[in-house]
Amino acid sequence: MQPTDPTGPPLRVALLGCGTVGTQVARLLVEEADELTARVGRRLEVVGVAVRRLGRDRSATRLPDELFTTDADELVTRADVVVELIGGIEPARSLLLRAVEHGASVVTGNKALLADDGPTLFEAAEAHGVDLYFEAAVAAAIPLVRPLRESLAGDRVHRVLGIVNGTTNYVLDQMDVTGAGFAEAVEQAQELGYAEADPTADVDGFDAAAKAAILASLAFHTRVPASAVYREGISEVTAADIAAAREMDAVVKLLAICERVVDDDGTEGVSVRVHPAMIPRRHPLGGVREAFNAVFVEAQSAGGLMFYGRGAGGEPTASAVLGDVVAVARHRVLGGRGPGESAYADLPVLPMGRTRTRYHVSLDVADRPGVLAAVAQVFARHEVSIETVRQQLVPGPDGERSRAALVVVTHQASDAALSATVEALADLDVVEAVASVMRVEGE
Amino acid sequence: MQPTDPTGPPLRVALLGCGTVGTQVARLLVEEADELTARVGRRLEVVGVAVRRLGRDRSATRLPDELFTTDADELVTRADVVVELIGGIEPARSLLLRAVEHGASVVTGNKALLADDGPTLFEAAEAHGVDLYFEAAVAAAIPLVRPLRESLAGDRVHRVLGIVNGTTNYVLDQMDVTGAGFAEAVEQAQELGYAEADPTADVDGFDAAAKAAILASLAFHTRVPASAVYREGISEVTAADIAAAREMDAVVKLLAICERVVDDDGTEGVSVRVHPAMIPRRHPLGGVREAFNAVFVEAQSAGGLMFYGRGAGGEPTASAVLGDVVAVARHRVLGGRGPGESAYADLPVLPMGRTRTRYHVSLDVADRPGVLAAVAQVFARHEVSIETVRQQLVPGPDGERSRAALVVVTHQASDAALSATVEALADLDVVEAVASVMRVEGE
Repeated sequence: MQPTDPTGPPLRVALLGCGTVGTQVARLLVEEADELTARVGRRLEVVGVAVRRLGRDRSATRLPDELFTTDADELVTRADVVVELIGGIEPARSLLLRAVEHGASVVTGNKALLADDGPTLFEAAEAHGVDLYFEAAVAAAIPLVRPLRESLAGDRVHRVLGIVNGTTNYVLDQMDVTGAGFAEAVEQAQELGYAEADPTADVDGFDAAAKAAILASLAFHTRVPASAVYREGISEVTAADIAAAREMDAVVKLLAICERVVDDDGTEGVSVRVHPAMIPRRHPLGGVREAFNAVFVEAQSAGGLMFYGRGAGGEPTASAVLGDVVAVARHRVLGGRGPGESAYADLPVLPMGRTRTRYHVSLDVADRPGVLAAVAQVFARHEVSIETVRQQLVPGPDGERSRAALVVVTHQASDAALSATVEALADLDVVEAVASVMRVEGE
Repeated sequence: MQPTDPTGPPLRVALLGCGTVGTQVARLLVEEADELTARVGRRLEVVGVAVRRLGRDRSATRLPDELFTTDADELVTRADVVVELIGGIEPARSLLLRAVEHGASVVTGNKALLADDGPTLFEAAEAHGVDLYFEAAVAAAIPLVRPLRESLAGDRVHRVLGIVNGTTNYVLDQMDVTGAGFAEAVEQAQELGYAEADPTADVDGFDAAAKAAILASLAFHTRVPASAVYREGISEVTAADIAAAREMDAVVKLLAICERVVDDDGTEGVSVRVHPAMIPRRHPLGGVREAFNAVFVEAQSAGGLMFYGRGAGGEPTASAVLGDVVAVARHRVLGGRGPGESAYADLPVLPMGRTRTRYHVSLDVADRPGVLAAVAQVFARHEVSIETVRQQLVPGPDGERSRAALVVVTHQASDAALSATVEALADLDVVEAVASVMRVEGE
């Protein structure tokens, strides 16, 4: 090991962006300077913070005013470590590429950029022999990148199931606990600060899809752009869906699912998707409440592993960023590099229709003989095998005849076959309404 | 980055020990050879397996017979990576030191050795510029070493709470679920293979204490020998304790607890202990069932993080070992080293008596006025503050007078004060019996 010298020339750190996370990163770099020096073996010196506008009150960063600059292009040329917390595609991408070309190691929490154009960045970092770290981009402080890339490097990951968006988990948890409908639960989440005024990115699954793309890339060493991720949000989850889950001792969660699969024709590929699904309450993910995040990894030898914690917020995200800063700084002091991103597997991404899943379907049906046979025939015709059927008589209001409900849980089948089955069921005379359709995960 | 060449000379791997874990490691090195080559950038070649006796059937390793040897001393001199899975102190320690002196990087799953004499090994590895990795030594495949050493390197860990022994968790879970007593639950665990014929090392907390020592070293960068860990097993946990926990909506778990604390006199130190404790059912650790393990980490910025999975078994442990093999092999191929063990903090380990905890105490008391006052006085005299008191009348058998029970939950106090309080309570005339005493964690 090369000797470290805490009194040697400091490593120059540049911050790009000074919002919620950037402020916390700056503050911790100042307040924990001695601790960080001990861990890195050299002092970390903040040489500048690039912001869009000067003149705001930045005292929470504990940094002197003269360190703030609007010239990010210049700043990245005089740093050893560049921390990008601007978010979005541009100018973040250009600045990171420029930093890398000038020999800086980079740390980013930018999930949109990584999901959109990760390969360009990884290739640039590799070509210039510098580190690119991004633990903060998925689930904030929950360590996922190192466990997936390093701890499981001698194992085979089959599947990753993640609750990676706190807003939607809070909304679904509220619906489960209070029986509230979707709109009401979103309002509660907004009042408590768990949801944005415009919650689209969360509720429609865009945020989760970007994270799913990154998780799939990590788990399967395969490049998965966010645009290849099948995505359904939670806005159509009803109180009836939640009640149906409860009947099965399950809960509804918005899951990011990444699976390594072999298709019917023998093609090996990955399936990456985000959609609401039922998961048994006794499953470790079933107990993830409120706005917490968790990622459940199924590997050949390791079995099931779960990583749980706060998936958002200034301080948890800053913790992940600083962990990466220490890692890349240590590499510069001690020599050597961390494991680069390598996409040697490059499996194809399978379309959703070819993904195999299970469905839970609740039907309102006519209360007369032959209904079950008619329904079962539709499943059989689509080659979807039924695991359980439950028939219930729902008493009608006074004087009216009672209604019947059929609850069907299927075995695995292709999503296309399941979806065609549900369409055909809706067309059946004996089916009055398809009350709830929900994928089932976690077994 | 230095170019990797999968066709270059292979890295020589030596295995020491061929029991449950060693067999799985050998098998995976053979079966996953191509995958591992892709990840390391060079082929891994098993050059020998040291065993105590030749002639056994080792076909499960998929290795040819001629690779097995009883001469471990010689084997370690001709390997680039030595994997030690013998367990125990000697000859494991001497072999690892010899391997390091000959320039090999080493991977071990030996928690007893690391807890007993880790510093000697780490210093030797550092002096010879090689890696010493040990993810398998704590909680098998659950990634803890990298998250604690690297992901949280920019954060401050305050506390680690771990369920790190599957046998005791299975026993306590059975007691909770079936209402069984301790002896009966141990028998069930033995029948199902979750407990050894002689379960002492698990039941009395020795295994958990060794893991607590390693966790504390990782979390606080402080050397903690296993002998410094306060240890209580679960053999005195009664069905009454479990029922008392249930009343509080809590469960009893054997916890390994590592805390960074500031003592009354301003001394900063670490408290490391293993004992049964109540933890709320809603706490993430409260839902860890059967023989699963989980470690909950509380850090300044990250908040609470939990790592969950199978903490034992041949395959999960082999997964952790192989992850380390890939890491140290990559370092040899690409240059550079992983983060070494550095003990720069070196906080003192506080004795149990000075550790601050909370107690849950159930007392059988006389049913007459003044009892509560007498009991409260004992707490006050020992400067232990009471959080809640619940008084219950327990109807006696027909014709007999009813008994009264007092359930007291305290605020935090030193363990010595709490323990003196309980002793004094037992001496009170009005106290007929101390029915249950249990520490409370998780808040």
